[in-house]
Amino acid sequence: MALEWQVDVWLNTRAPLELSQLRGRVVLLHAFQMLCPGCVSHAVPQAERVHQEYAEHGVSVIGLHTVFEHHAAMMPVALEAFLHEYRVTHPVGVDVAVAGISIPATMRRYGMQGTPTLILIDRAGKLRLHELGRMDDLRLGMMLGQLLAE
Amino acid sequence: MALEWQVDVWLNTRAPLELSQLRGRVVLLHAFQMLCPGCVSHAVPQAERVHQEYAEHGVSVIGLHTVFEHHAAMMPVALEAFLHEYRVTHPVGVDVAVAGISIPATMRRYGMQGTPTLILIDRAGKLRLHELGRMDDLRLGMMLGQLLAE
Amino acid sequence: MALEWQVDVWLNTRAPLELSQLRGRVVLLHAFQMLCPGCVSHAVPQAERVHQEYAEHGVSVIGLHTVFEHHAAMMPVALEAFLHEYRVTHPVGVDVAVAGISIPATMRRYGMQGTPTLILIDRAGKLRLHELGRMDDLRLGMMLGQLLAE
Amino acid sequence: MALEWQVDVWLNTRAPLELSQLRGRVVLLHAFQMLCPGCVSHAVPQAERVHQEYAEHGVSVIGLHTVFEHHAAMMPVALEAFLHEYRVTHPVGVDVAVAGISIPATMRRYGMQGTPTLILIDRAGKLRLHELGRMDDLRLGMMLGQLLAE
Repeated sequence: MALEWQVDVWLNTRAPLELSQLRGRVVLLHAFQMLCPGCVSHAVPQAERVHQEYAEHGVSVIGLHTVFEHHAAMMPVALEAFLHEYRVTHPVGVDVAVAGISIPATMRRYGMQGTPTLILIDRAGKLRLHELGRMDDLRLGMMLGQLLAE
Repeated sequence: MALEWQVDVWLNTRAPLELSQLRGRVVLLHAFQMLCPGCVSHAVPQAERVHQEYAEHGVSVIGLHTVFEHHAAMMPVALEAFLHEYRVTHPVGVDVAVAGISIPATMRRYGMQGTPTLILIDRAGKLRLHELGRMDDLRLGMMLGQLLAE
Repeated sequence: MALEWQVDVWLNTRAPLELSQLRGRVVLLHAFQMLCPGCVSHAVPQAERVHQEYAEHGVSVIGLHTVFEHHAAMMPVALEAFLHEYRVTHPVGVDVAVAGISIPATMRRYGMQGTPTLILIDRAGKLRLHELGRMDDLRLGMMLGQLLAE
Repeated sequence: MALEWQVDVWLNTRAPLELSQLRGRVVLLHAFQMLCPGCVSHAVPQAERVHQEYAEHGVSVIGLHTVFEHHAAMMPVALEAFLHEYRVTHPVGVDVAVAGISIPATMRRYGMQGTPTLILIDRAGKLRLHELGRMDDLRLGMMLGQLLAE
């Protein structure tokens, strides 16, 4: 089973979200940093498109702001401005900082190696993909289509 | 059930292909013209990528050269040069010309309105999508993923 | 001085064009083939943009169809369809074929190594650039701006 | 004559830069915000390319961080991280904040209407272009080429 995330600030959602609440849906969790170029140009807008087009077909898109460098530059107030300017409407959680280390809690728990990282979790809550780097639209669509059909 | 295509010249395949032979596979049939800009920049390379990446996962990609204008410019000898220059490796059939009308036989039989046209046929041989124009990679992936999972 | 081109068929112009007539203007001569992918995706539309935006500022854009392979696929009738479909409005000349060799006359005279090839000729008729391959917009603009200012 | 800028923090340069020092060079001044999508995807990398390719040919590229919204999210510490992550190497100055108003000093002095704004100043120190929004590479090259040739 995919591990629960640890988030202390949520944006674009009225109530905190837990993975366990999303059972029955396909979950696209994308870990990003607002100053990571590959996230900004590719992973974040790709996730937003999935949200816009497939939320109503059973995909829950969750952004996870996993700041592991330049912490002072990527505080929640900056993230909020980023999401506004880039018109990101899907829920985004701030990964909980851990005292004394630069890697935040969920990032460490999942063993993520950097950003962007894409994670797909099936309707049963099982981790099905964990991948670092740029994900091709065609391949992402294929995987989501297969997970939705299960 | 999807209708059989009518082809008199095949390229990139040793033997002629019939739709009925492909039962059990998902079929992506894309109708194009070698001088149609939207086909050349988008639909043909997209189809080739699906072929390269998903042929072994059960998708059969078939190009159909449906010449309905500039016939003298798009004869099979020209098509062959086009496929070579654009490194198209998936099978392509030339839609059979019909005496006295500009629209070739399969194009007419399917009621295609122009190029590019994308057609998806499921493992059971049933037509599932018929769409004119540019198809988004994410959406195409979603549909193929769902058809493969059936 | 840049050498005169040899053309036997002109498209997109009422009268044949000679380089000597264009003295006083900056000339952008681009050699292409209608089935050369890099020409179709980049060099031809780039040349057309220069024509659209800078013809009235002193730049004459001339396409030269230098067919050196797949001759049967790129006859003038096919070129005409190509120019129509890709909405090319600048003058295009067909480089004169030479009996017994695949390289046409102007291509050989200029020592062009392939397509696309870009040639810039200054207001005095002197060759200033001869380059094979993809030309960056910024760099092309820089060179044209400097030649126009002379 | 172009007005002097007002900057209190400089990055990517050892010493503060004044416009008056750059007489004899063509100056490309681009006003941006690190959370402005059009700046990040287009104007900043375009300016950096001009810097990389044309600094030694007489063009001085200067970025001006004109924060007029989300001030807390775009402090100098955040800008520094942004420049590092996006590999911006040309000099960037932070436009001086003005107490009580959101528009910083140089932005107001120049009458800039938003970001990105591109300003070109000729070798004599005269303002030659002031434009809001996305600038085409070809057109920018043309203007720079002409200014360099003066």
